[in-house]
Amino acid sequence: MISKVKNAMSTLVGGMIPHHHHQHQQHHPGDGHHCGSEGILPPRFPYGRPDFLELTPELLQCSTEHATRPVLTGKRDSRLPWRTGYAEVINAGKSMLNEDQASCEKLYVKKPTGKHRNSTLHQDPGDTTGIPLLFWGVYDGHAGSGAAIAASKLLHRLIRDRLGEVAHLLENPASPLPICLAKNGSPYQTTESGAAEEPDAVSDPTIRYHMEKVVSVESLVMGVLENAFKQMDELIEREKLSYTISGGCCALAAVHMMGKLYVANAGDSRAIIIQNDEVIPMSNEFTPESERQRLQYLGFLRPELLGNEFTHMEFPRRIQHSELGKKMLYRDHTMTGWAYRTIVEDDLKFPLIYGEGKKARVMATIGVTRGLGDHDLKVYNSNIHIKPFLSCCPEVKVYDLSESKHGPDDVLVMGTDGLWDVTTDLEVADAVSTFLSGCDPSDPMRYTLAAQDLLMRSRGVLKERGWRLPSDRLGSGDDITVFVIPLVGHEGETTTGVEQYSCTLQTIGPGSASSVSPGPVMAPDPQLAL
Amino acid sequence: MISKVKNAMSTLVGGMIPHHHHQHQQHHPGDGHHCGSEGILPPRFPYGRPDFLELTPELLQCSTEHATRPVLTGKRDSRLPWRTGYAEVINAGKSMLNEDQASCEKLYVKKPTGKHRNSTLHQDPGDTTGIPLLFWGVYDGHAGSGAAIAASKLLHRLIRDRLGEVAHLLENPASPLPICLAKNGSPYQTTESGAAEEPDAVSDPTIRYHMEKVVSVESLVMGVLENAFKQMDELIEREKLSYTISGGCCALAAVHMMGKLYVANAGDSRAIIIQNDEVIPMSNEFTPESERQRLQYLGFLRPELLGNEFTHMEFPRRIQHSELGKKMLYRDHTMTGWAYRTIVEDDLKFPLIYGEGKKARVMATIGVTRGLGDHDLKVYNSNIHIKPFLSCCPEVKVYDLSESKHGPDDVLVMGTDGLWDVTTDLEVADAVSTFLSGCDPSDPMRYTLAAQDLLMRSRGVLKERGWRLPSDRLGSGDDITVFVIPLVGHEGETTTGVEQYSCTLQTIGPGSASSVSPGPVMAPDPQLAL
Repeated sequence: MISKVKNAMSTLVGGMIPHHHHQHQQHHPGDGHHCGSEGILPPRFPYGRPDFLELTPELLQCSTEHATRPVLTGKRDSRLPWRTGYAEVINAGKSMLNEDQASCEKLYVKKPTGKHRNSTLHQDPGDTTGIPLLFWGVYDGHAGSGAAIAASKLLHRLIRDRLGEVAHLLENPASPLPICLAKNGSPYQTTESGAAEEPDAVSDPTIRYHMEKVVSVESLVMGVLENAFKQMDELIEREKLSYTISGGCCALAAVHMMGKLYVANAGDSRAIIIQNDEVIPMSNEFTPESERQRLQYLGFLRPELLGNEFTHMEFPRRIQHSELGKKMLYRDHTMTGWAYRTIVEDDLKFPLIYGEGKKARVMATIGVTRGLGDHDLKVYNSNIHIKPFLSCCPEVKVYDLSESKHGPDDVLVMGTDGLWDVTTDLEVADAVSTFLSGCDPSDPMRYTLAAQDLLMRSRGVLKERGWRLPSDRLGSGDDITVFVIPLVGHEGETTTGVEQYSCTLQTIGPGSASSVSPGPVMAPDPQLAL
Repeated sequence: MISKVKNAMSTLVGGMIPHHHHQHQQHHPGDGHHCGSEGILPPRFPYGRPDFLELTPELLQCSTEHATRPVLTGKRDSRLPWRTGYAEVINAGKSMLNEDQASCEKLYVKKPTGKHRNSTLHQDPGDTTGIPLLFWGVYDGHAGSGAAIAASKLLHRLIRDRLGEVAHLLENPASPLPICLAKNGSPYQTTESGAAEEPDAVSDPTIRYHMEKVVSVESLVMGVLENAFKQMDELIEREKLSYTISGGCCALAAVHMMGKLYVANAGDSRAIIIQNDEVIPMSNEFTPESERQRLQYLGFLRPELLGNEFTHMEFPRRIQHSELGKKMLYRDHTMTGWAYRTIVEDDLKFPLIYGEGKKARVMATIGVTRGLGDHDLKVYNSNIHIKPFLSCCPEVKVYDLSESKHGPDDVLVMGTDGLWDVTTDLEVADAVSTFLSGCDPSDPMRYTLAAQDLLMRSRGVLKERGWRLPSDRLGSGDDITVFVIPLVGHEGETTTGVEQYSCTLQTIGPGSASSVSPGPVMAPDPQLAL
């Protein structure tokens, strides 16, 4: 396995087009057929790890060792905003490259000037005027890394630019938004006499509408996030005309602006806030099971999308031809419970949603129902497109930081499914709280080390029978990416990050995979204490 | 107003066809046009109040007095199962008759015998063999009482009959259900050799399926409830060929069977469990606001249903023609937040969902999005049908009574929106807990009096400026129906119901509308203490 990876590494740094190490049809998201021009067009972005890791080519190569699965964290002197902790590890061999990606950026929102009005994605790193915005994104790719890499480079800029278009409206978050804007973007309201443009006339008693909904600045930011995800998805579709952008990705983004944290999720990554040892869920997962009724409803309303191969009904198992006329358990888009129905010919088609838990699939192909990319994804050996059933629209949740007091151990944890598949919310909260309470609150590395510790708990260590947790359960063989983001002490940002390392080794309850490897960019396995 | 009602009463008992007292286009659910053969065909059921009230014609007439709004409760010697408390009151004049209905029944579930195999809705009141089932339903009609009355007479029988079809599978609730049944209903599984019928082969190791989902008896009961609502809706549609069944209704049903409470809701009625003074919500409301995205998605996928008159987009107010080309706040089916878009001609159409809170409407017509009936409902002065946007499918929640210990003050409260519009869940819980704690636990009337007390809190008393609560806020002018159902002490069922009345008069906090009128079937207003 190692030699295979080594052979592949020669093309890796120059921006290789990933191909799959294993092909588990029906077992991994996005193993359906991605047709199109891959391999002919150049990649949109070369393969790599997040910029903030500042990996050398040698480290990049080392990061893909499936046999050792080294853990990558931010460098000791890296200055991620808010002392954000980050850790990542590659999968145990299911794909050659790490298909997760991440980004962490400080941006500034301001009204576009004449020069840049029509150039989206413009950035001028030296310019720190405007409303500061912090962004964290985790992207879990499937069937290639192209979509995840593109999103990790661009999504935050789309959000910044969209916010820029309404920057003049964000300044007064307490007052309701003008319902109508003139073409130049200024608030506008018609008078009874007709089309005259004038300032927002909310205070003008001569104007009465039957009903006017009050819309908050918070709702406007939510709308920006929702539409930026859609724009990102369209951008991938458009750029695929000129570049190879392989596969698709789940996207989980957190934005901090003006005292509020906005978490937007499309896919099966997860974010939780740990506050005072309590868990506040900040996302829901979108999977064939959680979105069954939405997908079945679409299949019911638009049966042509099922290509005469699938039925929108769900059955607890495949039906045999000999069972025609028998009664079988089923449920459709209107049902949460189950009932019996007499099997007819049409029910012998493959169910649109099939399988349970991590093995549930849409059209026997993909295991997530929201995300970016996947425009060419088809059912194996058919011409049936899966994209119409996938949504690129995130669900957005908002957390007002000013509404609670936060201590240094209160954090936002964002992770791809590799983290959560083997570690529950409560276990994560317990681990983070216990770990941080043993660290010097002023240690700039404490969130990095907490992220690393969390990651270890899901990866485990390599034993004869695979990657194992201390409990001897199987660890996650998936790519794992995790952010641990403190909710307080942002003044700590100005520290140089070279204070003395003072984290203690913790043993957290019986049999836990606690303890961390002090300091290095990569924490290879031998340094893990059991 | 009284004379109007009096005049109408002559036809009332004989089964009049209700017509509206007031017509608030755009302000009450179901004020759109119900076309069809009303007034020609006979009513399916005559107007009346729930059977268990055993009203005389005089009392029935008295119950429609909009000026006094007398409260109706069960008779002292009535024997509703579980000592269920019930109270109802007519609206303040928005419709001539009380469009709410209710039912409370004890039924027995058993496999249909040869004789009754094909006769659904059969009942033999003397037969108490089979699995006992308790049923409570509240139905909130609109645009007439026909659908609500039909549902109150039939829905529980449909549920009973559907459960009867799977009665042999309900007996062992702990074991998973057979996935497939033979034509005669017995568990069935194919063997590898083919179509031989034999008992459920779960224990037969020679049969291996790739995946078999385990389905519980609980899920089967949920499926029965879901499909019974659909069957009821189809029954109304079919019977409308021969009878007048006016309007539509929200339906909220609770079923107790084999130690579990199943609550199925389609509409804006609400059920909560009060356990140890804590509120456990047992339903969600389905309104144009809560179901906006579902309806917009349908309008987006099937624009022909919008009849070229409506847009699936939502705007915070109506758009004026002069605003074409301006930017306006909007949201579509993918959004929870808001964004600005440049107004085009198509946006000038009326929004599919419009209005806020209780005034939100689908197609400017109806204020609820789930329920039974409404098959002929059209947008005023048009040929656009609204039924495709309405759903008759309930959401079902399950509460396992065996999982907690319950005291005599733990109850399930079910009420139509008239109750909840002016009284919050917490206020209801406080009121019930305080009221019951002042009653003798053995008093058979305690839940009836608690229901009456709750109802008073939402109705208020008639003052110069209308029905007012003690706080001087407006009381509910709607029909109000409420059940208070104890979760413990079902052995009390056998009491004769003539124990000494021992409820104390309570004053529950400052300004509350506490205290009850001891005993009578009707509790006219003067007995209310302030």
